[in-house]
Amino acid sequence: MRDALVAAAFQLFLERGYEQTTVDDIVALAGVGRRSFFRYFPSKEDVVFPDHERCLADMTAFLAESGEAEEPVHRVCDAARLVLRMYAENPTFSVQRYRLTKKVPGLRAYELSVVWRYERALAEYLRTRFTGRDGTLQADVIAAAVVAAHNNALRSWLRSDGKGDSDAAVDHALGYVREAFGGAPPAHRGGEQPEDVVVVVSRRDAPLWRVVQEIESALGRN
Amino acid sequence: MRDALVAAAFQLFLERGYEQTTVDDIVALAGVGRRSFFRYFPSKEDVVFPDHERCLADMTAFLAESGEAEEPVHRVCDAARLVLRMYAENPTFSVQRYRLTKKVPGLRAYELSVVWRYERALAEYLRTRFTGRDGTLQADVIAAAVVAAHNNALRSWLRSDGKGDSDAAVDHALGYVREAFGGAPPAHRGGEQPEDVVVVVSRRDAPLWRVVQEIESALGRN
Repeated sequence: MRDALVAAAFQLFLERGYEQTTVDDIVALAGVGRRSFFRYFPSKEDVVFPDHERCLADMTAFLAESGEAEEPVHRVCDAARLVLRMYAENPTFSVQRYRLTKKVPGLRAYELSVVWRYERALAEYLRTRFTGRDGTLQADVIAAAVVAAHNNALRSWLRSDGKGDSDAAVDHALGYVREAFGGAPPAHRGGEQPEDVVVVVSRRDAPLWRVVQEIESALGRN
Repeated sequence: MRDALVAAAFQLFLERGYEQTTVDDIVALAGVGRRSFFRYFPSKEDVVFPDHERCLADMTAFLAESGEAEEPVHRVCDAARLVLRMYAENPTFSVQRYRLTKKVPGLRAYELSVVWRYERALAEYLRTRFTGRDGTLQADVIAAAVVAAHNNALRSWLRSDGKGDSDAAVDHALGYVREAFGGAPPAHRGGEQPEDVVVVVSRRDAPLWRVVQEIESALGRN
């Protein structure tokens, strides 16, 4: 019945426009009562984004399962891929919704609030992993960067009518964030960065012999 | 009259709550008619954020003035500081509004839409500067990271009741983004990072004596 309500709602939104369609119209077309509608969807906006609550719950559960050994930036990138997967499950529906959302300011505002909740879920997880003095700053910035990269790739895919390889596009976009914030695994870095540069970070007051030892070790010369 | 309307609105929001205050209540307290209210503010939400439109216009103008010689990440960081300045102009009002916004879901949604518009203004500028294959990706990610860093510092300052050095907090937060995306000038890096850490980047095939020379120079020991 939930799917039938979503299908009826979208048929009417596309035919008449979002604002011109009432919940009564939707339930009449789906052949059910108003109470059934509100059992599934708190409001008309929610029928446009029927799977975000489930996806948010999946994301929160996925992040809660993370162990200490997981590289945190890698983990939030994987969490963001859950959102892509939801869109990619049903390209036709996702493209229709994208077009509708662009036209209706109320849906745009609703979508911003959903995006904000995804971003907070990622940031909350990162805050548990980055516990230094700048932990909340790092968490907030990286969460925002991951969401922006994901959405950049997702929107390109939606604008291409759901054609093309959405996974590859999102991987590429998230790779940019992981390079910037050091969450790229060694194999990835090896492919991306030139092998001929070595970075050494040292305390200013470290004795010089200690620094040289570190460099020799980084260069693989000892 | 505009300031009187804002003052009356906030007095009532704090006394009765936002939802319980009508535009009629506000104009009655300010001693003006309804039409005066709507001449300044399209809606009750707008009276809560009276200066965002001006600030958005200032930001857009500031970015439009940029020359090719400006480092783009540096430029968007300076643009973000315009928002901080607006908040810092009137700490008491900003702190009151922060508390109010946290409590009222409708204002939270309105604020998200304002933040989104700032982010888009930064991203649009960056898109004109990053014209490579990944230009829109870089622009979107850096704009989101700048906004997240700015807001992290701004919120800390608001939570501390507008005490403390908001400029220093935002500089520090934006410094993190500039380091990640390569927009930090050498002088800035020196001021931001703890003085007791030295970073040396060297070609892997450089002779060791050359690397040691670089370190000595970085440590100021030669």
